Amino acid sequence: MLGTLAKASILVGAIALIAPNEPLQTSLAFATLGYLITHTLIPRVGPSFIKVGLKGRDMSKKPPVPEIPETMGLVAAATCLLLMFGLIPFIFFKYLVSFGSISNDEVVTENYKSQYQSLEHNKLFPHNKLAAYLSGVLCLQSTTLLGLLDDLFDIRWRHKFFLPAVASLPLLIVYYVDFSVTSIVVPQFVTDLPGGSCLLDFINVFVKLGNRIVNLTTGLSFRTLQTDYEIPTSAPKLIDLGVFYYVYMSAISIFSPNSINILAGVNGLEVGQSVVLAAIFLINDFCYLLTPTISHAAYDSHLFSVIFILPFLGVSLALLQYNWYPAKVFVGDTYCYFSGMVFAIVGILGHFSKTLIIFLVPQILNFIYSVPQLFHIVPCPRHRLPRFNLEDGLMYPSFGELKKPPSTIALVMLKSLGKLRLIKLERDPKSGKVVRFSNMTIINLALVWLGPMREDTLCLLLLVTQFMVGISMIVVRHTVGPWLFGYDNLTWGVK
Amino acid sequence: MLGTLAKASILVGAIALIAPNEPLQTSLAFATLGYLITHTLIPRVGPSFIKVGLKGRDMSKKPPVPEIPETMGLVAAATCLLLMFGLIPFIFFKYLVSFGSISNDEVVTENYKSQYQSLEHNKLFPHNKLAAYLSGVLCLQSTTLLGLLDDLFDIRWRHKFFLPAVASLPLLIVYYVDFSVTSIVVPQFVTDLPGGSCLLDFINVFVKLGNRIVNLTTGLSFRTLQTDYEIPTSAPKLIDLGVFYYVYMSAISIFSPNSINILAGVNGLEVGQSVVLAAIFLINDFCYLLTPTISHAAYDSHLFSVIFILPFLGVSLALLQYNWYPAKVFVGDTYCYFSGMVFAIVGILGHFSKTLIIFLVPQILNFIYSVPQLFHIVPCPRHRLPRFNLEDGLMYPSFGELKKPPSTIALVMLKSLGKLRLIKLERDPKSGKVVRFSNMTIINLALVWLGPMREDTLCLLLLVTQFMVGISMIVVRHTVGPWLFGYDNLTWGVK
Repeated sequence: MLGTLAKASILVGAIALIAPNEPLQTSLAFATLGYLITHTLIPRVGPSFIKVGLKGRDMSKKPPVPEIPETMGLVAAATCLLLMFGLIPFIFFKYLVSFGSISNDEVVTENYKSQYQSLEHNKLFPHNKLAAYLSGVLCLQSTTLLGLLDDLFDIRWRHKFFLPAVASLPLLIVYYVDFSVTSIVVPQFVTDLPGGSCLLDFINVFVKLGNRIVNLTTGLSFRTLQTDYEIPTSAPKLIDLGVFYYVYMSAISIFSPNSINILAGVNGLEVGQSVVLAAIFLINDFCYLLTPTISHAAYDSHLFSVIFILPFLGVSLALLQYNWYPAKVFVGDTYCYFSGMVFAIVGILGHFSKTLIIFLVPQILNFIYSVPQLFHIVPCPRHRLPRFNLEDGLMYPSFGELKKPPSTIALVMLKSLGKLRLIKLERDPKSGKVVRFSNMTIINLALVWLGPMREDTLCLLLLVTQFMVGISMIVVRHTVGPWLFGYDNLTWGVK
Repeated sequence: MLGTLAKASILVGAIALIAPNEPLQTSLAFATLGYLITHTLIPRVGPSFIKVGLKGRDMSKKPPVPEIPETMGLVAAATCLLLMFGLIPFIFFKYLVSFGSISNDEVVTENYKSQYQSLEHNKLFPHNKLAAYLSGVLCLQSTTLLGLLDDLFDIRWRHKFFLPAVASLPLLIVYYVDFSVTSIVVPQFVTDLPGGSCLLDFINVFVKLGNRIVNLTTGLSFRTLQTDYEIPTSAPKLIDLGVFYYVYMSAISIFSPNSINILAGVNGLEVGQSVVLAAIFLINDFCYLLTPTISHAAYDSHLFSVIFILPFLGVSLALLQYNWYPAKVFVGDTYCYFSGMVFAIVGILGHFSKTLIIFLVPQILNFIYSVPQLFHIVPCPRHRLPRFNLEDGLMYPSFGELKKPPSTIALVMLKSLGKLRLIKLERDPKSGKVVRFSNMTIINLALVWLGPMREDTLCLLLLVTQFMVGISMIVVRHTVGPWLFGYDNLTWGVK
């Protein structure tokens, strides 16, 4: 094992050293290394995880079901973080070297000019980019730690809910200091609606009030600075969300990890959806990177995104091999949080936190669909994963039970969803009353619509659908989007 | 409980908001909050720690010995990290606000001037300081994660040894980019020695060779830039350590956490020594901060140190209350690593990594004293903590046994140490051969020299000694130091 690893790292090291000035290639090399390390480590550390109690039994397999290690996402996450540390010198390589080479030929003098030069020179280093990268890694690491603590101690919802927002604080500060762009583009048709401009005025007043309150209490001000990161004002109708844009970004950092965490329960789905998301993000990034006319700032943003996502993809692919049906390991909340935060960070620091949302559409739909159960409007069993049928080895929808008579709202909701064929209802044969309803996750919905199927078919179906949705979203983003909003930042950037 | 906490946080919030421009006061407020949170959390989360198997029995108490939670340092560390996140907006408050207020009065225009202004303005924010702070928190968080993994999985030495150096990589990069000071001052008497200048020349050649090799393989160059952070060249003899200065800083980040980890085994000693160290660091920092003539850069460095150490001191004091004799909780490797890294970070980013070393003298002496056992030159039992005597309730030195005949080196070493009264030897009454020797830790040495004592007396004795040594070191640093080195950065800084 060590032999293979050693050979691989020599190879990767060679690639990285040949191209120290190409962060993209280095990141790819690190992704390969991440894949190899994770792939090697998982089977080796599994027994230790079982020993400390991080283990579980797969409820969708025929007995005898062995205990397999849980929280193996930690291995992927820790490897990925380690690689992200190692990437820093390579990402900033050209600055570090130019920094050295300039200062190297100078003689140590104590005159003011030299001092001045060195200070000037120190300014050449992109500290803001280093701060951005560090804030990203820091946020990711906090999330990993939180995930691990959750896997270990099963922290209550109300105790952990806001922690990702605290973890994303450094990101928001970097955003505030470096970009401050809080405006979003309003589609033409909204302005053209009868009450459209009235609505916009209302939002404007509301935002101003919010900004004022924050300004009075903290002294902070919010306003879109004019940089080449974003749309020119000559472009379509803008609306400034002020402080609420920061609230939105915080919400993203809470939503993204949790949305991946609730679309789970089938072998390979947590990692699979993350890999698909990573692929969609990369495709979108390369749409920008391969366009020769894009602005320098947009190029940097999407380069950052690629550099950040590649090592994540590497470790995830290794994890997927062990988590795919029939799973040899479980990934745990650690992986779901970690993965969700990767996308949140890339979206925020890459300045496409709105595009991020459309890529998360399957997760968002699953969340909205789950709301009645998550907020206990209708009963929610402890586990909502599909039911495994021992006889035919297929997955069937699982059901929530109405043990006591439901409230009127709940009943109306269940019946309407039933009519729309969005859930399957089971009634008492005698009284005709609804007694059971299929659990509200898109996993169960797929089984309700398409009938029972094997676990891996189900997972593959969900992943392919997600990929197709993602690709359509990219197309929509760059075709219907520009038409709706009157511009596209892909086409008119200034060099 | 929540009531007390709520009142306390309102109080602390008030202090922080009244003085948002005073990072020192805010840090003090956060330290108070840290104390309260840790103090409240520890008894509440203890049972969960026991449930997941993070528990142990105190081997130095009279039976029945209950199981008490282990790794409770995690609570202190996590609280401290959370507070360090929360501190960021306060530390950079004046920049964030000035940033807002300038941009607030401007109108959104798309002309170049405004763009230019906002970019200029963006440069006003001290990104380098943000990057430094973030790299510190990141390093600290990595160490916490590593400590937790070690407590959970008992990672092998060879697997974890270099990990703190990886964690400190961002620190070193920030140091390289922002300070690059790799020279140290050589005391006059070294140059005056017969072979002194010859030795310096040799070191110089060696460093140049090292720098050249690194330069050829990576393109990086090492050379002290002339900034106001350090000694002027008109001052005493300097020697540039080049790349080896970075090796030294990496070594610090490995040594400091481990040195605290091996001076352990008595109730309250791990946390106690950290509290004493924090106090010594703070006293030293205030020596600088209260000197009106110090340079701006030195002021900033020591302000950073105080801001970083205060919250750590807050959470540590709360932990100490539970860990003090008779201990209700154990702190685990997590706390030792965390604490050691706090000092390493402050030393590196505060530019006093050499002073750091003299403050760690008790830990260093303990390490050097332990070397024969740590490197298995003489036998090393699994635990080297002092032996508890059930009958009188006192602590006695514990012994290593020579089961097979020792090597000649080992025997010579043991006999010499025995003659110097640095260990206690026990001989076979018949053959006169050495069969047992007191374990080589300064804890056992104290018991060898002063006779058996109660566990809390022993701990207090060690802590008071450490404090006295630390205070003497501060005095030596600022009296004998300047005399030896020909200058003191405390007295001649330029405003």
